Amino acid sequence: MLTYDLSKQNKLSLYDKLYRCIRDDILSGTLKAGEKLPAKRRLAENLGISVITVENAYSQLMAEGYITSKERSGFYVEAIEQSKAKKKLPAREEPSCRTVFPSERPNAEVFPFSVWAKLMRETLLEGSERLLEAQPHEGAYALRKAIADYIYRSRGIETSPEQIIVGAGTEYIYSLLVQLFGQDKVFGVEDPGYQKTAAIYLANGAKCVYLPMDKHGVSLSALEGSGVEILHITPTHHYPTGIITPIKRRQELLAWAREREGRFIIEDDYDSEFRIAGRPIPSLQSIDADDKVIYVNTFSKTLAHSIRISYMILPRKLLDLYREKLGFYASAVPSFEQYTLAKFIERGYFERHLNRMRTIYKKRREAILQKIEGLKFRSRYEIVASNSGLQCLLRVKTNRSDEELIERAKALSVRISCLSQYSRLCEQKYDHTILLNYSKEEYADLSFLDGILEPLP
Amino acid sequence: MLTYDLSKQNKLSLYDKLYRCIRDDILSGTLKAGEKLPAKRRLAENLGISVITVENAYSQLMAEGYITSKERSGFYVEAIEQSKAKKKLPAREEPSCRTVFPSERPNAEVFPFSVWAKLMRETLLEGSERLLEAQPHEGAYALRKAIADYIYRSRGIETSPEQIIVGAGTEYIYSLLVQLFGQDKVFGVEDPGYQKTAAIYLANGAKCVYLPMDKHGVSLSALEGSGVEILHITPTHHYPTGIITPIKRRQELLAWAREREGRFIIEDDYDSEFRIAGRPIPSLQSIDADDKVIYVNTFSKTLAHSIRISYMILPRKLLDLYREKLGFYASAVPSFEQYTLAKFIERGYFERHLNRMRTIYKKRREAILQKIEGLKFRSRYEIVASNSGLQCLLRVKTNRSDEELIERAKALSVRISCLSQYSRLCEQKYDHTILLNYSKEEYADLSFLDGILEPLP
Repeated sequence: MLTYDLSKQNKLSLYDKLYRCIRDDILSGTLKAGEKLPAKRRLAENLGISVITVENAYSQLMAEGYITSKERSGFYVEAIEQSKAKKKLPAREEPSCRTVFPSERPNAEVFPFSVWAKLMRETLLEGSERLLEAQPHEGAYALRKAIADYIYRSRGIETSPEQIIVGAGTEYIYSLLVQLFGQDKVFGVEDPGYQKTAAIYLANGAKCVYLPMDKHGVSLSALEGSGVEILHITPTHHYPTGIITPIKRRQELLAWAREREGRFIIEDDYDSEFRIAGRPIPSLQSIDADDKVIYVNTFSKTLAHSIRISYMILPRKLLDLYREKLGFYASAVPSFEQYTLAKFIERGYFERHLNRMRTIYKKRREAILQKIEGLKFRSRYEIVASNSGLQCLLRVKTNRSDEELIERAKALSVRISCLSQYSRLCEQKYDHTILLNYSKEEYADLSFLDGILEPLP
Repeated sequence: MLTYDLSKQNKLSLYDKLYRCIRDDILSGTLKAGEKLPAKRRLAENLGISVITVENAYSQLMAEGYITSKERSGFYVEAIEQSKAKKKLPAREEPSCRTVFPSERPNAEVFPFSVWAKLMRETLLEGSERLLEAQPHEGAYALRKAIADYIYRSRGIETSPEQIIVGAGTEYIYSLLVQLFGQDKVFGVEDPGYQKTAAIYLANGAKCVYLPMDKHGVSLSALEGSGVEILHITPTHHYPTGIITPIKRRQELLAWAREREGRFIIEDDYDSEFRIAGRPIPSLQSIDADDKVIYVNTFSKTLAHSIRISYMILPRKLLDLYREKLGFYASAVPSFEQYTLAKFIERGYFERHLNRMRTIYKKRREAILQKIEGLKFRSRYEIVASNSGLQCLLRVKTNRSDEELIERAKALSVRISCLSQYSRLCEQKYDHTILLNYSKEEYADLSFLDGILEPLP
């Protein structure tokens, strides 16, 4: 029977402590592949904690792919490359069981306008000379320091301000990455996926390969023969399907990168701040022992679209090359915004803002899911991936094509998008699936979902 | 004898009216190539104006290459392609005889901090929703409108907000231009020239050719055989030599672009706001009848380096291609900065700020030129191109190499740069020429200019 001392005083919740203990035992090999975990009730009794706590810990381990459940049998340890786990994750202090939801458009009711305005005034008063000076290409030190501290607290990523490059939006950062690796490189993107990513790599002169997904993320077999050198993925929360890449696949992807000198993975962590249940999935970057992962995230999604600040964390071994090739560029982000955002993060406003947003988005999501229950044709809709970042996916039983569905919705004055529109490879499995964005005003009334299924007159 | 009615009531100065009358007569063919202009005193008497007014008008015409002076003979009309002049320049209302000087680093004492802060607060108060929304790729309409109006007033460029793309600095804009034209295109840059320009084109995957200069700008013969398709030049004020490309060469360059479908000229007008005497030189864009010129300018040089806002004016015929290829990008400039700058321009603060800067830079320049007069080795220095934008050039009589001069200055704790460092083609004519930036703190004491020429002990 597993026995852990969960009494150690720190700010972690019990479930998080238990999750860490079991995860570390799996990574160290103490718990072996195929080994059966104790039943939840028994483990709870043994440790003197509630069954719910054990349930939460197991759920998190499942979500991350450390264990699987077999029906009517129990929980089993997955086969994982132990030795490759880079380091123990730092103890993080964060609320347990986040119940969180994202939106494509953080809007004015959520944005902490008065705080932001106060910090702006403060930045203005602080010193004019500093505000007028050109920033180094990588961004103001104060902001890079604030990001490094935040990303450690929130994502367990140990990094230093030296590795952080602040850019004017992720699109700008992708352009820098093409320049860093060279226009002759082949970039791999997920299919289905965020369409702009490929468009940006192509516009910047790189080659681009669309890689099919299986239920764990980018298909490894497709990747192997693809000629891809730089792989761009959203492993925490695939866009738009919400697939979470489990630890095993993550290790396989890291192993793929390790095989060749010039291979790298761009980890696009665009909505890791938002997740339905449990802790956010640890980043690929934090388990990368070989300096193969470039971590990218943005404040445009979490704060406001008009705040054009994103950042990437470069592996140490790329720093010299980066400085040599791109260090001559000026920073593309105004100093004023950089210093204001630095204060906003330093003083904890950013994390408070995220909490507030999650509550609001949760309500929006609940309202949408409730409305779906009341649909006349409810039985022809299946909610899939409602934990996904930006929206839920609705699978529809219909003989109509996606084009027809879109046309019929349009006739009802509603724009809908279908999963198939996010795919270039056009696999049939992506047909008949509608994306419902929680925060779109158009979706306040969902009666169009019945309307598009009504028989034609 | 030339006779013009200069009494028409408008805000133009007399000299400017006279300049326009003569220029228009040259462009229309009324004054023919080789024709001798009346002597200054006689024309002044004839028109009932002062000799100084005629002198100013003739100087401006000379600076722009419409006329030349032959010693002890007089002023003659240059050979110019009349029919190619696109349109009469609009009557502009601007102060006559600007005496202006630029700086590489507009600094805090010059920046209108309190006005800027006031406008920022106003932008904040005005409406939160608008500030949080993503801007269209090309930038906020209010800012593009303000720029269109300003550029008409200040540079006689007739354009519409639709043609203007606001970007996060000129470096960002150059990257967009490579993406627009394609990475397979050959970009031509001036040699000597601003080193970053070529670096940016190369980093973005384009090919880049260094084109030698003659005394009128980029050498046409070098251009012809070069394979260049996109020519990047600074015709108003070449960096760093200060060469002004005269009207004849401008027309030849436009004719070169006209010859082939895919040829375009990027007019980098980085310091047109600053000029020693007379009106600023009309832009290439304003005499381009064939939609071949992309005009680029920035607020980073005129306002503050930390304000990362530049813009380009696209020819109408490129608009569709631009939208198709790059319209998907988000704007990389924060809304907040865009709206604040729009107000700053609309309300005339920008032009007032420029006037103030010119006065300050003029004083700095005078101080430097005066100090040069007091040098022990004054006779070994020749001031060349002191009208140039960012600095003056000092030619040195010495047997020492540029490397030695730089080394000796370094030993005296002063960093100097030499014209030869701005050239890849390494033509000998660029040797022994030092750039003196008017606003560098290091140049407050010029005794190092004697120091580097002292005989070695």
